[in-house]
Amino acid sequence: MASGKPASGEDSLIARYFRPLATDPGALGLDDDAAALKPDGADIVVTTDAIVEGVHFLSDDPPDTIARKALRVNLSDLAAKGAIPAGFVLTLALRSAEEAWLKPFAAALGEDAAQFACPLLGGDTVSTPGPLMVSVTAFGRVPPGKMVHRSGAKAGERVMVTGTIGDAALGLAVLKGGKVHAAATDKAAREALVGRYRVPQPRVALAGIVRDHASAAMDVSDGLAGDLTKLCGASGVSAVIELEQVPLSAATWDLVSRGVVGRETLIVGGDDYEILCTMAEDRVGPFTQAAWVAGVAVSSIGTVVAGSAGPRFIDSQGIEIALERLSYSHF
Amino acid sequence: MASGKPASGEDSLIARYFRPLATDPGALGLDDDAAALKPDGADIVVTTDAIVEGVHFLSDDPPDTIARKALRVNLSDLAAKGAIPAGFVLTLALRSAEEAWLKPFAAALGEDAAQFACPLLGGDTVSTPGPLMVSVTAFGRVPPGKMVHRSGAKAGERVMVTGTIGDAALGLAVLKGGKVHAAATDKAAREALVGRYRVPQPRVALAGIVRDHASAAMDVSDGLAGDLTKLCGASGVSAVIELEQVPLSAATWDLVSRGVVGRETLIVGGDDYEILCTMAEDRVGPFTQAAWVAGVAVSSIGTVVAGSAGPRFIDSQGIEIALERLSYSHF
Repeated sequence: MASGKPASGEDSLIARYFRPLATDPGALGLDDDAAALKPDGADIVVTTDAIVEGVHFLSDDPPDTIARKALRVNLSDLAAKGAIPAGFVLTLALRSAEEAWLKPFAAALGEDAAQFACPLLGGDTVSTPGPLMVSVTAFGRVPPGKMVHRSGAKAGERVMVTGTIGDAALGLAVLKGGKVHAAATDKAAREALVGRYRVPQPRVALAGIVRDHASAAMDVSDGLAGDLTKLCGASGVSAVIELEQVPLSAATWDLVSRGVVGRETLIVGGDDYEILCTMAEDRVGPFTQAAWVAGVAVSSIGTVVAGSAGPRFIDSQGIEIALERLSYSHF
Repeated sequence: MASGKPASGEDSLIARYFRPLATDPGALGLDDDAAALKPDGADIVVTTDAIVEGVHFLSDDPPDTIARKALRVNLSDLAAKGAIPAGFVLTLALRSAEEAWLKPFAAALGEDAAQFACPLLGGDTVSTPGPLMVSVTAFGRVPPGKMVHRSGAKAGERVMVTGTIGDAALGLAVLKGGKVHAAATDKAAREALVGRYRVPQPRVALAGIVRDHASAAMDVSDGLAGDLTKLCGASGVSAVIELEQVPLSAATWDLVSRGVVGRETLIVGGDDYEILCTMAEDRVGPFTQAAWVAGVAVSSIGTVVAGSAGPRFIDSQGIEIALERLSYSHF
């Protein structure tokens, strides 16, 4: 994403739309081959996630929501690792450089970069005959050795999750039509669900709080059931989750209570971008309190138990619910 | 690129092919959402470059050369900035997960990661109905504040370039057929040119030497003429380049001497991945000597001059050569 003069097509595109986002001095105004990131005594946490048209977002999704989603799915990873955002690089594979698309894309990306204090450090813009793809690599800072891993959960600890689960999967279902679309007759509820699919709410404000209290953490991106299975696998433990304790939004609760969707569907959806973490019982109170002050509700949904089997999901009678699949997989 | 158990298709693909490459402890065996990069007192230099099937490589290029090119174009950027490789993350957009393709791809990537001491730290694997795309973000370490910029060139300094220019552009021309293909009858010469297109030779060994001597540097990826124009633009200077001093390989010289291609074509080609840099006259000797010890020939090709016009390219009679275009642009 480097540029000089005279401007070629690619360079003028970058200068016009993306240079204003390169507010960090280390980005060198996108006018170099690379950026310099100052660690400031911290470890640098690195995460990368790409979103592809037709796979992670829909062809007719608005460009501003695509931009926000591309950055936010990475911010969600940083938050779950206890890291404070430091910057990101962007790879944009475009069929063509259309102002009507790029302008709102870059504007929204800039707004999010400012809101989450995560400036653009560099990138690459390439042409492709295929679907639009936005790949972001984001960087965060944590005190040395303090990144929160997936692997620290211990038997006897509580399983906690932020926000609500299942909204994004239902938002996608609304956009795709079908029974959820037909049942979600309330406009505000429908928009709330679609909004959760298109624009995740990364729990950046909780990074330090997760670091203070969690023994293990990850973000929920491929579905709660599958992601918890991964966390348990990395920690060498199992878990028991009370399905009725999994937090639901009002819009989702309405669809569940009317029998349109089952709770077991919600935990194998995806795109929640909430933080799933484990912690000792005596940490639950302080964690909940600190998260509340930061403006995020958190819920206790189950218990870490010994064992190497996958986590079990039980209903209010203690009966195990069988899941057809755990999460979304690309292949 | 995180994975746990039980393995989904995406996860088992990662475990099988890419986990062996994650040799750095900060990569956590690719078993987490993010990696932790230890700065070790250095600034972290960040660069990102993507390569797309049909744009940066050909559909029938061997998977091992695609892997090497994807990593090496980024290593080339790090070297030009004076940075020692520290690791990279990979985003792979695939139509399908075919073992016959992935196995040699991952093996070659692992060989290069080991050769250049640049371990895989993480990544993301996504499915796409479109062309194959490999996006790499690479990290390097430089002493604090010591990244070499594009912007330090001063009037009166020499313009230096490593290796030879134009081979890769001719290698691409050979692969595409046409007059270069017809004229390049010598098999060894043809393979040398194609090899330069498919597998760049990043000047990693020169990183410290560039940092010690260069006032400004960048890697030559879009063509010498255009890239020098960018360096001059960032530095607020111009330059005069003696076209006959631009270093050519034996295979390229053969085609030039027979009139198949002109020198002016070679400096607007691309994919050279050599280092272009400027330095004070008294640095040229020590730089050349140190580069020679590191096994890389360097050439003095011209002079930095005052002015804001683009650099001029002159022939042996001092007559300016007009260039139809400066470099490759994606849009």
